[in-house]
Amino acid sequence: MSRPLGVAVVGYSFMGKAHSNAWRNVNAFFPETPAVRQQVLVGRDADAVAAAAARYGWHDAATDWRAVIERDDVDVVDICTPGDSHAAIACAALAAGKHVLVEKPLANTVVEAEQMAKAAADGSSRGIRSAVGFNYRRVPALALARRLIAEGRVGEVRQVRAAYLQDWLADPAAPMTWRLRRESAGSGVLGDLGSHVVDLVQHLLDEPVVAASGRLRTFVPSRTGPDGPEPVTVDDAAWATLETRSGRVASVEVSRMATGRKNGLTLEVYGDAGALRFDLERLNELHLHEGLGGPTAGFRRIVVTEPEHPSLAAWWPPGHVLGWDHTFTIQAADFLAAIAAGTDPAPSFADGLAVQRVLDAIERSAAQDGRTHTTHD
Amino acid sequence: MSRPLGVAVVGYSFMGKAHSNAWRNVNAFFPETPAVRQQVLVGRDADAVAAAAARYGWHDAATDWRAVIERDDVDVVDICTPGDSHAAIACAALAAGKHVLVEKPLANTVVEAEQMAKAAADGSSRGIRSAVGFNYRRVPALALARRLIAEGRVGEVRQVRAAYLQDWLADPAAPMTWRLRRESAGSGVLGDLGSHVVDLVQHLLDEPVVAASGRLRTFVPSRTGPDGPEPVTVDDAAWATLETRSGRVASVEVSRMATGRKNGLTLEVYGDAGALRFDLERLNELHLHEGLGGPTAGFRRIVVTEPEHPSLAAWWPPGHVLGWDHTFTIQAADFLAAIAAGTDPAPSFADGLAVQRVLDAIERSAAQDGRTHTTHD
Amino acid sequence: MSRPLGVAVVGYSFMGKAHSNAWRNVNAFFPETPAVRQQVLVGRDADAVAAAAARYGWHDAATDWRAVIERDDVDVVDICTPGDSHAAIACAALAAGKHVLVEKPLANTVVEAEQMAKAAADGSSRGIRSAVGFNYRRVPALALARRLIAEGRVGEVRQVRAAYLQDWLADPAAPMTWRLRRESAGSGVLGDLGSHVVDLVQHLLDEPVVAASGRLRTFVPSRTGPDGPEPVTVDDAAWATLETRSGRVASVEVSRMATGRKNGLTLEVYGDAGALRFDLERLNELHLHEGLGGPTAGFRRIVVTEPEHPSLAAWWPPGHVLGWDHTFTIQAADFLAAIAAGTDPAPSFADGLAVQRVLDAIERSAAQDGRTHTTHD
Amino acid sequence: MSRPLGVAVVGYSFMGKAHSNAWRNVNAFFPETPAVRQQVLVGRDADAVAAAAARYGWHDAATDWRAVIERDDVDVVDICTPGDSHAAIACAALAAGKHVLVEKPLANTVVEAEQMAKAAADGSSRGIRSAVGFNYRRVPALALARRLIAEGRVGEVRQVRAAYLQDWLADPAAPMTWRLRRESAGSGVLGDLGSHVVDLVQHLLDEPVVAASGRLRTFVPSRTGPDGPEPVTVDDAAWATLETRSGRVASVEVSRMATGRKNGLTLEVYGDAGALRFDLERLNELHLHEGLGGPTAGFRRIVVTEPEHPSLAAWWPPGHVLGWDHTFTIQAADFLAAIAAGTDPAPSFADGLAVQRVLDAIERSAAQDGRTHTTHD
Repeated sequence: MSRPLGVAVVGYSFMGKAHSNAWRNVNAFFPETPAVRQQVLVGRDADAVAAAAARYGWHDAATDWRAVIERDDVDVVDICTPGDSHAAIACAALAAGKHVLVEKPLANTVVEAEQMAKAAADGSSRGIRSAVGFNYRRVPALALARRLIAEGRVGEVRQVRAAYLQDWLADPAAPMTWRLRRESAGSGVLGDLGSHVVDLVQHLLDEPVVAASGRLRTFVPSRTGPDGPEPVTVDDAAWATLETRSGRVASVEVSRMATGRKNGLTLEVYGDAGALRFDLERLNELHLHEGLGGPTAGFRRIVVTEPEHPSLAAWWPPGHVLGWDHTFTIQAADFLAAIAAGTDPAPSFADGLAVQRVLDAIERSAAQDGRTHTTHD
Repeated sequence: MSRPLGVAVVGYSFMGKAHSNAWRNVNAFFPETPAVRQQVLVGRDADAVAAAAARYGWHDAATDWRAVIERDDVDVVDICTPGDSHAAIACAALAAGKHVLVEKPLANTVVEAEQMAKAAADGSSRGIRSAVGFNYRRVPALALARRLIAEGRVGEVRQVRAAYLQDWLADPAAPMTWRLRRESAGSGVLGDLGSHVVDLVQHLLDEPVVAASGRLRTFVPSRTGPDGPEPVTVDDAAWATLETRSGRVASVEVSRMATGRKNGLTLEVYGDAGALRFDLERLNELHLHEGLGGPTAGFRRIVVTEPEHPSLAAWWPPGHVLGWDHTFTIQAADFLAAIAAGTDPAPSFADGLAVQRVLDAIERSAAQDGRTHTTHD
Repeated sequence: MSRPLGVAVVGYSFMGKAHSNAWRNVNAFFPETPAVRQQVLVGRDADAVAAAAARYGWHDAATDWRAVIERDDVDVVDICTPGDSHAAIACAALAAGKHVLVEKPLANTVVEAEQMAKAAADGSSRGIRSAVGFNYRRVPALALARRLIAEGRVGEVRQVRAAYLQDWLADPAAPMTWRLRRESAGSGVLGDLGSHVVDLVQHLLDEPVVAASGRLRTFVPSRTGPDGPEPVTVDDAAWATLETRSGRVASVEVSRMATGRKNGLTLEVYGDAGALRFDLERLNELHLHEGLGGPTAGFRRIVVTEPEHPSLAAWWPPGHVLGWDHTFTIQAADFLAAIAAGTDPAPSFADGLAVQRVLDAIERSAAQDGRTHTTHD
Repeated sequence: MSRPLGVAVVGYSFMGKAHSNAWRNVNAFFPETPAVRQQVLVGRDADAVAAAAARYGWHDAATDWRAVIERDDVDVVDICTPGDSHAAIACAALAAGKHVLVEKPLANTVVEAEQMAKAAADGSSRGIRSAVGFNYRRVPALALARRLIAEGRVGEVRQVRAAYLQDWLADPAAPMTWRLRRESAGSGVLGDLGSHVVDLVQHLLDEPVVAASGRLRTFVPSRTGPDGPEPVTVDDAAWATLETRSGRVASVEVSRMATGRKNGLTLEVYGDAGALRFDLERLNELHLHEGLGGPTAGFRRIVVTEPEHPSLAAWWPPGHVLGWDHTFTIQAADFLAAIAAGTDPAPSFADGLAVQRVLDAIERSAAQDGRTHTTHD
């Protein structure tokens, strides 16, 4: 590869900042990956995006994503906009021959997600790569968890207990936002946090969810918007039990009303020969239980910072912990490595579609008193 | 009261041992309660019950509970037998004018539980007291939790996340027992551990559950019994979401297959002004979060061993922790105090019935693909 | 043995209550030990001791310990008085042919401790048993720790980090007590809590401390007594580094001023092939690290409640945790088992003396600017 | 300021990588600080430093630091070499009018540190800034701890319990390195990890240590070097008690032999109205105890990721945790902010000297059987 890969990021708020950070640092930590150039940051407000571009290390700023995806100096399009624009940008970029990384969830609807998965498959046949940004797959402790499960260290998994609990809406006085309107957000906490959980369940167990029973709840049905009280049209909290193809059961609980929980993604995996526990607020730790008992059995707290741990040789000595944003840098490295290798990166758009289908089954179930729905209805 | 209250315990295995311990110690820690005398221990095997009686400090042993409940020197009948005999013994003892404490769950069926609740109400009108042994209400940390909720320290509770996870059946080679046969046990983990969880949800929130959606699973469908392989006819794991009368939601997960979890009763209570967390494996601790944020907000680990904590003035100095069995001693003290005060102790048989109705709704829901059932169907 | 062993306890406040509880329950949990009878409780205030005796299950009460140790129906004398009377009672009881258990620390001075150790050795030659009540040796998790160390599971131990932190004197307004006067207490936190720590270091490592460097501090030099301000003549906090015979190093920190710490006895043991951690506030847990590294190395949280764990077969099923007071019941059982076996129980008075000598070396060092003193000066 | 500040980093191994990362990212997170340019990376091996420079984002590489400090396009010299070259480079750079940041510890000897402190003072009078890289002051949780102490939230601090425990030398087969030779490293774990601890004690309490009693130990006296067995001439572990000017006491324990501890910097601060606890392996958390008791007192786990927490407004939403390397980025920002403000950044070379004097007192004490030495001997 004679010149660095040119990257464009679309969107410059929370996710745009996190992805910019990843592109700025990926070559420093993963020098074996293709060199990248932070070519252009894209946003609708010209002044704001120019300021963000300067701040985050971009060479250029632009307001028209349609023009950007046609640029010759852009090889990768990384989409960090709200979900309702994912499909349009991703499909156009793929059609223009650009590799595409898109923030999760893949789309706001199953129909859009299907369209994107199809475009990705078409792209792949032409050597165009695409992936969806379920960055928690890149948490080294979770990558280690998956490896241990695959190696049979916990035996056959029977049940998973998962939750993702935050509290930023616990206060009824918190104002209305686009995230609480169905037309812009598509879904509430289920789509936002539930998508992470569902992806991790499928990823860790390496098999799809085939059926779901769900319950949704909006605890604060109205919040103050710019023009006064406005109905909240998405869920504040959601519960589900999921069944995987081979018959495992996963319970899921997600909430934005869990007072005191800041970023509480917790996973417990119980197998017939061991178990695993994880908490995102302590993301450098994995708890492993091996065997079924005995006088020194117990959950072992692994500080996942050793060079032999997934992705960690690139970073710091043992015990020098990573932060949340490093998962995006690892994600960028894995994406670049796939481009270099000429393989399709994971999670694919098809994986993103599979998540959407599970979320959809949960919503359908919740609308029918919790009756179990399959993901292929 | 001129002579000590005579106590009879029926049953001398695990629960009989725990209750014997309570009666042996209650006056030492709670001298203000009525004096008791460990009058007679009852069991079907004459030799075994005699040995247990001697060991556990009983003055007498007997094999015929029907004779025992007629004895003049017996004032309290404490039933520690399997659930299928609760109704018969309890109703007969109440009819004979004895105060009755019965181990949880109240009964194996809703019908039996209804009959018992009626007998208890009749007894109460005659000054005869009765209670069901949901001993975890007596864990000081949980009693404190209830007090804090009642005082509004966490605001209006919105959701509860509860689990009771054990692993004594994780090994498929673990043999068949009466607890895994529907005819003797009535239910699997749902009745055994789920009953504790449901009682605590209703107790902590101080309101009934009115609807439930559930899922049951038997992961190991056959185990080796005395005559070879035998089908397991009860659940190994259960999941439910519960709705309380005022619209709160509680999630429940119970399992005997949760490898590595020994006695993992965990509770999380999220209100609109705070939150609580509890883990039975660390039963002297309660975690409290007050308020919705701010620079020093966080979950506070309260070591619940101060004299001003519920039931703790009777015990040891701060930081000198209680064990699991002390909850039975406190339970006995509370039962005796109600007798002395001429009031009905809690939890009543009606409370026990309410738990059965929730368990029944969960089972009915599970039998119908998770469709939500009300507790009054 | 044709009749139960008659036990006398001298002292009926905090420790008298804890020891009474042990004698009341020991046969129920350890039926293979000799039967005991709670013969007589001894105290100076006739009314108070009679009330305590009735409450704690004693058959008799008495005010004159000299008369009690001569009684034929008394076989065991258990001394729970303040340290300044230990030597007199213990030596007299041993001379009278009674087995003696004495609360820790063995005595207030090395001279007294030497006299007691000599009396114990004389007694042993006549079949009279004696022990000092370092009850934390009976915490199952610590007994397991000792076993694991002896088995080489952590390799050669290099260093121990120990602390015992409480906060009941953190408030300068806390009043004067006998524990803060040198003439009655002998020492401050060093003798009270430091003695536990020193005993555990020697017990876990199975070798004596031979040298110590120490520092003492009285943070609140005066407190309000019955007649106004009174000087505090003992230490509020103490620090030491200890060297064992084979050259291991242990650091010790003890304090009654550690705000927020209720009963914080913590131990960390670092060997050349593993490590152990313990915290008395979670006394049912031991954390074990095996090996020097590797991708799944970590501290393992062992819930020490399995039947194969030390002393636990006598109690409850796995995960049903013990409390602080159960350590005294186990201590009583071990003492009785030694009587039955005709062997000397541990810890012996000689062990108690060894602790006193270490405390003395720490005090001497502290008085000389921290210069290291040997324990045999 | 018309052009970005040109930065030179000297050294490109572990610390050079960490500092490069900081300079690469500082403007993205702290846009209000002066703009910087990663001008030149300096090292002795021309090929290696060129590769590192390319990888870490530097515009240039060089091998002669003396030439670099004279360059007009260099405004800041950041020294990441071993301690024995700190004094020469720092003094020369200050003389050349460059702002200087130097890794900790300031120097290998008190004499060098004194010389550097003098040069820094001279520089300051000319507007030249200097600081020493005790990066743990920048951990937001520790910055919060200092703020809370200064605000009196824990009252008057009485005692601090500190440790820094690692295990990378626990294996006796670990080979010889320059860090284990006195001539190159100056000191062992005391200088390496002990310097962090001493700095934090003085920083958190905002007063100097005036006296120390210490003990040093080399557990593995010989290790295999390139030419066979070689003596280890520095300490593997160290213990000290420190006294501050106002009479507070801090205990310190540092070790490279603490099997299982990866990066265990732990701090406990006990005041007369509260307490604090911290563990670097969970660096986003601070535990605060307020008050002296009451029914809901306890240590509160603060997840230090709120915008109102020190330095955190620059980063991510609540609960999205930082990693170890972010402390260097914050350090760079604070250093730049001081340059912009025309004030002296902290910690100053004088602060670094104060740390050296405490370490020196510990070493002198250890050489004299633990006798307390003052820091101004």
